Amino acid sequence: MADKQRRAMLSAYFPILEWGRTYNRSVLTNDMMAAVIVTIMLIPQSLAYALLAGLPPVVGLYASILPLVLYAIFGTSRTLAVGPVAVVSLMTASAAGAVAAQGTAQYMEAAITLAALSGVMLAVLGFLRAGFLANLLSHPVISGFITASGILIATSQVKQILGISAGGDNWPDMLGGLAATIADTNPATLAIGIPATLFLFWVRKGAKPALQRLGLAPRTAEMTAKAGPVVAVALTILAVLAFNLDAQGVKLVGAIPQGLPPFAVPSTDLALIERLWVPALLISIIGFVESVSVAQTLAAKRRQRIAPDQELIGLGAANIASAFSGGYPVTGGFARSVVNFDAGAETPAAGAFTAVGIALASLFLTPLLFNLPVATLAATIIVAVLSLVDLKTPGQLWRYSKADFAAHIVTIGITLLAGVELGVIAGVGVGLLLYLWRASRPHAAIVGRVPETEHFRNVERHSVFTVPHVLSIRIDEALTYLNARWLEEYVLEQTADRPAVRHVILMCSAVNEIDASGLESLEAINHRLGDGNIGLHLSEVKGPVMDRLKRTHFLDELNGKVFLSQDRAFTELSRDTGEPPPPVDHYLARGMI
Amino acid sequence: MADKQRRAMLSAYFPILEWGRTYNRSVLTNDMMAAVIVTIMLIPQSLAYALLAGLPPVVGLYASILPLVLYAIFGTSRTLAVGPVAVVSLMTASAAGAVAAQGTAQYMEAAITLAALSGVMLAVLGFLRAGFLANLLSHPVISGFITASGILIATSQVKQILGISAGGDNWPDMLGGLAATIADTNPATLAIGIPATLFLFWVRKGAKPALQRLGLAPRTAEMTAKAGPVVAVALTILAVLAFNLDAQGVKLVGAIPQGLPPFAVPSTDLALIERLWVPALLISIIGFVESVSVAQTLAAKRRQRIAPDQELIGLGAANIASAFSGGYPVTGGFARSVVNFDAGAETPAAGAFTAVGIALASLFLTPLLFNLPVATLAATIIVAVLSLVDLKTPGQLWRYSKADFAAHIVTIGITLLAGVELGVIAGVGVGLLLYLWRASRPHAAIVGRVPETEHFRNVERHSVFTVPHVLSIRIDEALTYLNARWLEEYVLEQTADRPAVRHVILMCSAVNEIDASGLESLEAINHRLGDGNIGLHLSEVKGPVMDRLKRTHFLDELNGKVFLSQDRAFTELSRDTGEPPPPVDHYLARGMI
Repeated sequence: MADKQRRAMLSAYFPILEWGRTYNRSVLTNDMMAAVIVTIMLIPQSLAYALLAGLPPVVGLYASILPLVLYAIFGTSRTLAVGPVAVVSLMTASAAGAVAAQGTAQYMEAAITLAALSGVMLAVLGFLRAGFLANLLSHPVISGFITASGILIATSQVKQILGISAGGDNWPDMLGGLAATIADTNPATLAIGIPATLFLFWVRKGAKPALQRLGLAPRTAEMTAKAGPVVAVALTILAVLAFNLDAQGVKLVGAIPQGLPPFAVPSTDLALIERLWVPALLISIIGFVESVSVAQTLAAKRRQRIAPDQELIGLGAANIASAFSGGYPVTGGFARSVVNFDAGAETPAAGAFTAVGIALASLFLTPLLFNLPVATLAATIIVAVLSLVDLKTPGQLWRYSKADFAAHIVTIGITLLAGVELGVIAGVGVGLLLYLWRASRPHAAIVGRVPETEHFRNVERHSVFTVPHVLSIRIDEALTYLNARWLEEYVLEQTADRPAVRHVILMCSAVNEIDASGLESLEAINHRLGDGNIGLHLSEVKGPVMDRLKRTHFLDELNGKVFLSQDRAFTELSRDTGEPPPPVDHYLARGMI
Repeated sequence: MADKQRRAMLSAYFPILEWGRTYNRSVLTNDMMAAVIVTIMLIPQSLAYALLAGLPPVVGLYASILPLVLYAIFGTSRTLAVGPVAVVSLMTASAAGAVAAQGTAQYMEAAITLAALSGVMLAVLGFLRAGFLANLLSHPVISGFITASGILIATSQVKQILGISAGGDNWPDMLGGLAATIADTNPATLAIGIPATLFLFWVRKGAKPALQRLGLAPRTAEMTAKAGPVVAVALTILAVLAFNLDAQGVKLVGAIPQGLPPFAVPSTDLALIERLWVPALLISIIGFVESVSVAQTLAAKRRQRIAPDQELIGLGAANIASAFSGGYPVTGGFARSVVNFDAGAETPAAGAFTAVGIALASLFLTPLLFNLPVATLAATIIVAVLSLVDLKTPGQLWRYSKADFAAHIVTIGITLLAGVELGVIAGVGVGLLLYLWRASRPHAAIVGRVPETEHFRNVERHSVFTVPHVLSIRIDEALTYLNARWLEEYVLEQTADRPAVRHVILMCSAVNEIDASGLESLEAINHRLGDGNIGLHLSEVKGPVMDRLKRTHFLDELNGKVFLSQDRAFTELSRDTGEPPPPVDHYLARGMI
């Protein structure tokens, strides 16, 4: 028994023990197939995203080896493909760029340290079971952030297509930089960049039907289309060689060190850590939210489940591995996970096989990439991220909820104008403020009895029966510190407006909790109503709430009674002759409450 | 009509127009009486709190003149007495001490700038109607903060009673400082400090009964007892003169500049403002919460009302006035407001008369205070703040709610160990985290029909009727981004556990709102259930929620129906023969939903 429990706990922390037990040859074949396809897709992507992060292209390969193995051991998604992704790369560039210049050893060190910090944070949050923190990012904030990041990333790559050098951390600066240097456009680079971009756009939309017309089966056609970026890479390398474009000013990837990832050590410099921990936290949370959304979507399709808190540990381990093998922050990528899923991956072993594929590539393939134009990688990025830009959501949100629209637009605006970090923080902040604002004005209604029934409904929406000396208020929310002040104001105001009232009944059928602040407000209401000789009564108090109230003096001091049902409360109190009600003990002693 | 509206709006912003219209001689007499009593109480208090804030005593008088006049014009409480208070003085000392040394012109400038920043922040929050922000401070956090501040303040004054100089911003440092220098205790100071403290403790508890025994009426006895600190001041001044205690090392208040408050200008140095804005915000919120609690308590006793958002403007004006007249941050004080109320103050004019009293004191009385021992003021502070320390609350909270207890204890602990600013921030942070944690796990129940009725109740608490192919889930909370992820997990998990289920009904009687994230989760649930050929139905959707859903595509895509009542939904679906339900249009067209 104890043995079984231990095994269950081990499996929770090491999901590999679970799926590893039933691993067989057929699963192996499927996982290998998927790994081959994802590897082909991941090579140009990881080079491109490393460039986007301001790092040497090879760092993208390093970040796609060990992290995948670690996620395969600790992650709970069967099909999530981990590695460098666009948004996290942009955030890395922003954070590392704030402490060092691109191309310096300090910049590389900052990227490694970000991965380490982010890994430790994710793992700690996982052990603390604090996945709920990701709830702070609402859908409108996430989608606003992704849209704005997509715009920023695409804009940042335009210079590579034009062959100019323009800087800028925010959108106005980027556009200004492009406008200032557009006259320096390199025609040869443009001649590579524009066709590559158009080709990749076509691959995304038109390649699958075209391949089907050539006789390929739909699934084969779709998988083949995913190799589009590899085709673009090969064709542009050939073009560079054929037309000697290097001499005409086309920027090439150049020499990529051959070999397996080096052993790297993150910085332990406290001053650096102090400057990096906020961006590392934001990278962790954004990466986690993106990753979990993808993993959940894919798991549901096969009726599998993921464990969000264990996902934190899996992504944490992947990032720590990335740090120690010369990489930078990684997370689960949307596009590549879908490819992995569609290609038939059945277990996380597919991820480990992908790692082997990338390792082989960095051992043997990198010399072939010497002549790869940077413009080709930029085209890959632009085409990939423009699909993230979602222009329909703002209109939908505007129609559905102005508050959600506000959070969405603020996130987009601040991200474009002030960068990714402030964008996320502002989005979370606005979301919370709006939530608190609404939570501080909960719903409540004056209710009356629906004739000939025991039901009580809102007097403003139904024709119901009331009596002038009894005021029944239905509270539609838990009583917490966020609305405690409102409760006092609301009840006393409603009572003050009705001079005939001698009894107030709070109908608590929807009150799931009363926290200490809510209790204090109830006590204050009780005393103030008592001063005016008005009784305070409660009806339909839920069991767990009542249990807790019994542990306090509130019921002893209550200037009225607690009724099982609103109907009994109303019936009894509307017959009241005006004498003050007996203390609660009276009823407790008689077993009436 | 427009004229009447304009007047109502003017009165909202200038409450003085409201009560000023009915002002008469009898009200004047009452206000004057109250002002005399409050003035007598306020003189030693304002000197003492200025010393606590690390400022020259006269600054306490300055902060008790113009601010009171401005509050009388803009404030909505009839009886709130504004001026320097203990907790805000401690916070001022902490904030100003972080940018300059006590006794320097920079320190004074920091205090003035804090008042200005705090005033502007309060006024802006008032115009934005953002009083709800004060909700972030729950009762347990406020009471923990006040208790810890009381302990810190009392400890900080012990050195003045002993006549030694010991520093420290947090409790361990203060205690260490006292222990290190206790050997230097000045006997003459102790001979003043100990009797003064004991006398003031006795005044608080024993003076009223003693005066009654001497034949005074209860109310007169109570009011006379409030003059206790003035008696202590007079007696210790006489003792200094009689025994020439100055020569024996007793620290005296010394020369206080005579005259009305100077015109001062807050700093506009951005670097200083950047360092002071966080403490200024905390001072504003703590001051506002303290003040509003007092004002509400007193207003309710006379069935009056206060307007929290206008209170922000009133306190903001008071603080701006304090800044421009050489004062420091002020707010409504608890003890003095109660005295003002009990002494019969009827309108804010009492506050303005108190200002006149303090102005007269600073014109003519200050030479008399030359020989006042600082130990006497320290005794006043110690006796006043020890009543703030509440040792019963932790036990009560522990029994009532572990989460509230945690917020309370963390606030006390961090305030004592790391100071007032971090204490407030930690308290708000812990409160929010616990709230978010609970909000991310809302209440929901699987329900079944109570036999022979139309009621549906929790299957775990009642014996109810269910059928295996229909799963009814009652959601007891609004669907917001904080619980959107939970909703998906919960519904899919419950469905996955019951393979026979063909219909899921979400009973929405308690769902007051569905935000955009909640809607996305519903859509995701709908798609995933649809993949498994399970229908998703809603019942008892509230009117406003339904109106918003109709503005989206959700109802078109819904893989089931919307029922007016849970009873109808259950009756119809439990009869279902297993065919997929028609699309929602079918029912919409027939007017069935």
